[in-house]
Order: sequence, then C-alpha cells, then structure tokens
Amino acid sequence: VSLESQLVAWLQAKIPPQECVSLGLGDDAAVLRGGDGADVVVTTDMLTDGVDFLLDQVDLRAVGHKALGVNLSDLAAMAAVPTAAFVSLVLPRTGSQNFSALELAQELFQGMFPLAEDFGVAIAGGDTNTWDGPLAISITALGATTERGPLVRAGGKPGDKLLVTGSLGGSLLGRHLQVEPRVREALMLHACYDLHAGIDISDGLALDVSRLAAASDCGAVLDLSAIPLTEAAHRMSQQDGRTPWEHALGDGEDFELVLAVAAEIAEKIIQEQPLKIPLTAIGELIAEPGLWQTTAGQPTPLAPTGFIHE
Amino acid sequence: VSLESQLVAWLQAKIPPQECVSLGLGDDAAVLRGGDGADVVVTTDMLTDGVDFLLDQVDLRAVGHKALGVNLSDLAAMAAVPTAAFVSLVLPRTGSQNFSALELAQELFQGMFPLAEDFGVAIAGGDTNTWDGPLAISITALGATTERGPLVRAGGKPGDKLLVTGSLGGSLLGRHLQVEPRVREALMLHACYDLHAGIDISDGLALDVSRLAAASDCGAVLDLSAIPLTEAAHRMSQQDGRTPWEHALGDGEDFELVLAVAAEIAEKIIQEQPLKIPLTAIGELIAEPGLWQTTAGQPTPLAPTGFIHE
Repeated sequence: VSLESQLVAWLQAKIPPQECVSLGLGDDAAVLRGGDGADVVVTTDMLTDGVDFLLDQVDLRAVGHKALGVNLSDLAAMAAVPTAAFVSLVLPRTGSQNFSALELAQELFQGMFPLAEDFGVAIAGGDTNTWDGPLAISITALGATTERGPLVRAGGKPGDKLLVTGSLGGSLLGRHLQVEPRVREALMLHACYDLHAGIDISDGLALDVSRLAAASDCGAVLDLSAIPLTEAAHRMSQQDGRTPWEHALGDGEDFELVLAVAAEIAEKIIQEQPLKIPLTAIGELIAEPGLWQTTAGQPTPLAPTGFIHE
Repeated sequence: VSLESQLVAWLQAKIPPQECVSLGLGDDAAVLRGGDGADVVVTTDMLTDGVDFLLDQVDLRAVGHKALGVNLSDLAAMAAVPTAAFVSLVLPRTGSQNFSALELAQELFQGMFPLAEDFGVAIAGGDTNTWDGPLAISITALGATTERGPLVRAGGKPGDKLLVTGSLGGSLLGRHLQVEPRVREALMLHACYDLHAGIDISDGLALDVSRLAAASDCGAVLDLSAIPLTEAAHRMSQQDGRTPWEHALGDGEDFELVLAVAAEIAEKIIQEQPLKIPLTAIGELIAEPGLWQTTAGQPTPLAPTGFIHE
C-alpha cells in the first residue's frame, strides 16, 4: 500500500464530509459545488526531479508540458472543461543545464504555453521559490463541468463494458513526456453517450481499472488479447523480454481514458468510432470484486500492477 | 528585483489576457469569473524547508498551520470566503525528527485541521510524493467573493487613508508561524464600509504598501510614529539595536491587512472600531509615485524594505 493511499484513507476518516464538496479526496479531481450553474473541478499534481524526470538530462520544456498535461488529463477523466492553471515552482538556486533559476522557470513555462493555448487554459497565478533542493513543480488546474455533470470513477455497474481510447504500453520510450490529454475526447463522448464512469491511465491500466472498479463497488475482468498495444510496447517487449501486454497493463503514463458504459452503448460507440483515435472494448465490470483476466477462457486473478507512488 | 517579480513581469508580457480571468498574475490571488453569481478566488503559496522553516527544529503542526494560514491570509486580502484547500506535499523519503514520511505528512495535516475547521475550509484534495530532497508544501486555496466583489490592490485613490489591522513587527519571535488570517475582519469591513483596496502584510509593511500603491497608480506616505508596534518589535529592537519601526516596516509575516479607504470612511472606521483588534490610520495614498515617510515633518523617501523572495 502506497504512502499516498495510506494518507488518503487516514484523511478520509479524519475529515468530515463538507457541504461545498460534492466529490473530494480519492477521485481524479475534486468537484466543488458552484453557486448556480457549473461546478468547479479541481485537480493538483506535482512532478519532482529524480522521481518524474532527471533534471540534468531532460528537455525542460517537455517537463513543463508534462506538468500541465497530467493535470489536464485528470480534468479529462472528469469530463471537465479546463479553465485555469496555477503553477508553483521550487527551483534549485543555482539553476541547471547552464540555465539560471529564472531561465529554468521560463523554459518550464515555455513548455506549458502551447498546451495552455491549445486547451484554452489561463495560467492565472502561482508561486515561485528558490532553495538548495531539487526542482519540484506543483500545478493546480481548474475546470468547469458541462451540463452533463462530472464523469466520476464511482458510477460503473456490473455488466458495463470497459472501453479504452488509443493504445497502451511503453510510455517510457517517449510518450510519458508527450502527454496528450484526452480532454476533447472526454467532452465529446460525455456529451453524446451515457457514460457511467471514467478514469485516466496514469499509473497503469491494471491499477487504474481496479481503482475505477473499486470506486464503483465492482470487480473488473480484462480480455488481455483485446488490449490495443502501442508500437512502443512491442519494442520494449523485444528489449526486456516482458510481454507487450505486461507493458500495457503496468507501464502507466499512457494518459488514455478508460470508460465504463452499458453494453448497448458500448456497442454503439465501438461501431460509430466517433473519435480520431480508436475506442476499444477491453473487458467489463463484474459484481465479484477484484481484477481478473480471461485470455485463457476461465477468469484468473490479475495483479493490479502499475506505478505505486511511494 | 526578485526572481519572482522578474518571472511575473515576463509572464504578464507572454500571456494574453484571458476571458475567464478577471484578475490574474500579480495580486494576492486570481479571480476567475463564475458562471452567474460568485467569482472564484484562487491563491497558491508554497513553503519550503531551509527557507520558510528548519524541518529538524520546527513544530511540524505549526508548519502545517502556517502553510494553510498564509493562503487564507491571501484570501482575506481579497475579502473572499474560503471554501476549499488542496495540499501538495513532497516529503523527504526518510522522514524527519523520528517521524516517518507518512507520520510527517499526518503531523502537517494535524496542524491544518483546526484552522480549516475554524474557517470552514474543506481539505478537498492534493498530491503526496516522496523524494530524496527536502520538504516542500504547496497549498492552493479557493474562495468565493461576496456580493461586494473582490477587494483588490488596484482600487486605491490619491487622498485615501491607509488603515492597518492589529500591530506589526518582530514576527520571527513566534507570530510568523502562528498566522491568524484576518478573514472574518476583511469580510466584515468589506461588507460594512466602502473599501477601495487591500493587501495582507506578508513580506513587510513598507514593501506591501508600496505594492498596493503601485497597483493603484499612486504613491504612499507613511506616518511612522502612527504605526502600531507589537511587543515583539520592541523586544527585537532591544536585542539587535534596530528601531522597532524598522521591524514593523521590514520584518513581514504579520499577516495583518492594509486597507485604502476614502478619508471620511477612514474616520468613521477609526471612530467605530468595529473589530476586536484595533484599526489604525498609518498614512495615505498620494498622486506622486514612490514610498515616503513623514515622521520629521517634510516627506522623505522611505525604502520599500521587506522580505524579497529570491
């Protein structure tokens, strides 16, 4: 059990439910009740040197892009329209890679600007600090729900099909930095079809599906042979001898969406293929808790592999 | 010029004005337009080991209290009702002070809970990470404006009197950790009187007054002899030989409010003393830019001392 999930469990027991919070700790983002119309969706994610990237080796603009992108991916998972982002930095006093601390900050922001513009996100504030420690970037992103309300993890039902956008695995070969948040895809699907639940794949398909299932009081069974694989998953498999499916299940940082929808809606979506990227049925929610696979006919238990944050 | 103000100036030139942001970079907080009624006020502040506290010496609950308190003080400066806070931590992997990393996080939160309860703030999300670096705490707090709208830095006019809540100076002797955000005071004053502009004293009276004045396209003149001094300012003065006024002007972290109000309203407020803490007139805004003092009769320039963030 990760430190973060221990802490969240402790906080959930400690913090009483609050009137203004319709969805708090434990989803991709929190939902705060707006006065009249739209609710405000808030998510926050921090990237740190040595854990999420190696400062002396990485393209700083790519780190800036990723720091904003992972937050937008969380908003996509809630089917929220991104509105604003707040960027807090703590910078190594002496900079890095021949960049001063100020230049380092500017490079990070230069990496955020195209993504912010693309998704209409206002970089509206933040806090900038220097210290003798390594670089950390904390971004809080806000979004607005549409009239369909937020898409949450908890709405899945036994019998729902699990759909995934795009293809999975091998993100370490580059994609983990080149996050393409599925905001438009989520909004389009949420507007046109009745989606029961959704999550983005940040820590790994197996882990994130088991989270969606658990939040929905269900289990999940995955048909491994149906999982769409990236070319990178195949390449990594050739290098390290693990199967491409293991990479798809456990690598994480695909930033694709997993959606739970009623079987008949799933059939319609799969047939209509309304996105520019493919939508694939990879399994279903079941009443029995736990994560299962069916490649070999009978369901057998599947480990919820993925990146466990310490 | 600090790194942060260089970065903010660069960002202001880079980032086009955005429709949803009615007040962005450069005030105590950003104001995002709500659909109908209330605007959303957002502020974010990060505290770091070695800069804002020394982890191996400090009371961890006091650090948690302060981390939330400084954000609530920014909301107070905007006369916003606090609603929710999002807490991102990056923890030293091995913990500190015989606390594991998890216990360290729990101590920080234990320090936040009483303040959150007191001000009705929902701790609604966050992100928790561990690494080999020192502790950093980044909190983003959200608030709602009242029907009077946000109190901003930019509304002051020449001739406005400057009022300050409480007394100032010597925060290092303890108060810098025991932040008492002036949320209720700001809301009460904003509801009952016509306030032109406001700011909280985080970096020092002289610096923060000059920020309010500059944002209002004014200068400011302070009557040093009128500045209410804390007992701590006197004590520090005895220890270090600097005058207590220097401490009041430059120490910062008083987390009191400075307000700009028309002269007749100032007179009314001073006479009515509607708060449990004193309100004192300490100077006024003038058309001439810059910061001035009048202790010795003629206005003489006053350095905008205070804590300059690197």
